Amino acid sequence: MNKLEKREYHSCSNGIFFEMKRTLVKKRSCFQEIEVIENPHFGRMLFLDGLVQTTEKDEFFYHEMLIHPAMVTHPDPRKILIIGGGDGGAIKQALRYPSEVVRMVEIDPDVIAVAKKYLPWLLPSLEDERADIVIADGREFLEDSHDKYDVVFMDSSEPVGPSVTLHERNFYKLIKERLAPQGIACAQMGAPFFQTESLKRAKNDLKDVFGIVRFYLAPVPTYPGGNWCYVYLSDQVDPFATKREPPSDLKYYNPEIHKAAFALPNYLQKILK
Amino acid sequence: MNKLEKREYHSCSNGIFFEMKRTLVKKRSCFQEIEVIENPHFGRMLFLDGLVQTTEKDEFFYHEMLIHPAMVTHPDPRKILIIGGGDGGAIKQALRYPSEVVRMVEIDPDVIAVAKKYLPWLLPSLEDERADIVIADGREFLEDSHDKYDVVFMDSSEPVGPSVTLHERNFYKLIKERLAPQGIACAQMGAPFFQTESLKRAKNDLKDVFGIVRFYLAPVPTYPGGNWCYVYLSDQVDPFATKREPPSDLKYYNPEIHKAAFALPNYLQKILK
Repeated sequence: MNKLEKREYHSCSNGIFFEMKRTLVKKRSCFQEIEVIENPHFGRMLFLDGLVQTTEKDEFFYHEMLIHPAMVTHPDPRKILIIGGGDGGAIKQALRYPSEVVRMVEIDPDVIAVAKKYLPWLLPSLEDERADIVIADGREFLEDSHDKYDVVFMDSSEPVGPSVTLHERNFYKLIKERLAPQGIACAQMGAPFFQTESLKRAKNDLKDVFGIVRFYLAPVPTYPGGNWCYVYLSDQVDPFATKREPPSDLKYYNPEIHKAAFALPNYLQKILK
Repeated sequence: MNKLEKREYHSCSNGIFFEMKRTLVKKRSCFQEIEVIENPHFGRMLFLDGLVQTTEKDEFFYHEMLIHPAMVTHPDPRKILIIGGGDGGAIKQALRYPSEVVRMVEIDPDVIAVAKKYLPWLLPSLEDERADIVIADGREFLEDSHDKYDVVFMDSSEPVGPSVTLHERNFYKLIKERLAPQGIACAQMGAPFFQTESLKRAKNDLKDVFGIVRFYLAPVPTYPGGNWCYVYLSDQVDPFATKREPPSDLKYYNPEIHKAAFALPNYLQKILK
């Protein structure tokens, strides 16, 4: 084994490995370790604190499934907010609809700088004129600014490191206060197969805050556990009542996938319903 | 890194690793290398020729999704055949319905012996009185015996090693000849994210043989690429017209999951439709 490789643990005793053809950047920002490597199969891969965030080959699975379910069901999504998402994958999908503004609040400017330099397929979105990039802590930003949004996406990393306050009940309440009437929030909720207990806690917190809490699933090849979990949150909007067609050139999401994603296997129904 | 670990490559440059708490058996049969290890997260894990076949913790994902879609849609599934499946996971699910016989044709008696000894949660099925275990090459068995079946499952390993002849057009034709009227065949088809080209070839072969060819997807945490692919094959039976309820104690499969599994993401629709 002379090849250099990058490993990510999914539990204390299993995980994934990726051969590193080369390391394009590895640095410590004020918030986390940022690394971009090149792997022969997945292309360029962004790691934050050692965890795969996005890869050239499979980023579409995650970002399409985070963004499109809310964007096709909101009656008129004009003002969009993304908390986190510094790599630019979420904002790229959100900008595919004719909104007024897509604001992205990312805590770590170095993630954006690295994405602009090393993940060039995301660059046009980060430089789109409707993209309003704010460098701030998502929670502090929402406490200080009283703007309302039609759709809020929580594209945070795991509840360790800089994202820890984005996974708490009070933060969910703050999100709800910043939603316009008929607002929708969507968040990534981790790997249900490995993080069952934290998912259960989050469900209880979310149900205290939102009238409609629907978890949905879709796989991401480089994420742990087969399916990844997302949640659709609203007080008024039915997640199945789609108002428009998605963009025609998507690689993952379509109307059948939308409906299918909300079907939960028995072991998760027990936890999440 | 002093801990012993087992690695499986998903491409030439990425894969998964599992810490080995202990190795329960490692032997070479006439057909393949058989190994059972114990991992703290997944429990006991069976590898054939170095590839994860089944684990204590996540076997239900794969076996429930292979067996139940056909079993709930066939009008009267009395005679069931499983090609491969020596670990006993498929026959366990098939035996949950009141059929006359569930015949399993496994080429490698050592796989069955290892499963009986080291995967005890599958043992009752392998010793059920309706289970007719035949040690034979699946293809040769079907050429020699002219029995007809209501449902045939192809629970083979990958198209390398002893399973290579189970992934060819002539074998699909043979399966069709052994199906009773209103028969259904289901097969596992590998990891669509990694094996896109072989899936495309299989689709063309299958469409030459069967009138109804519907691919479906479901994740298996220890298998590569997020979702795993299966195919539902028939000439007469609609995969959406369910005739009965599944067993009530399943951990993965339910009627909503059944419908959802047939939704294909855009990148696979292009290849498979």
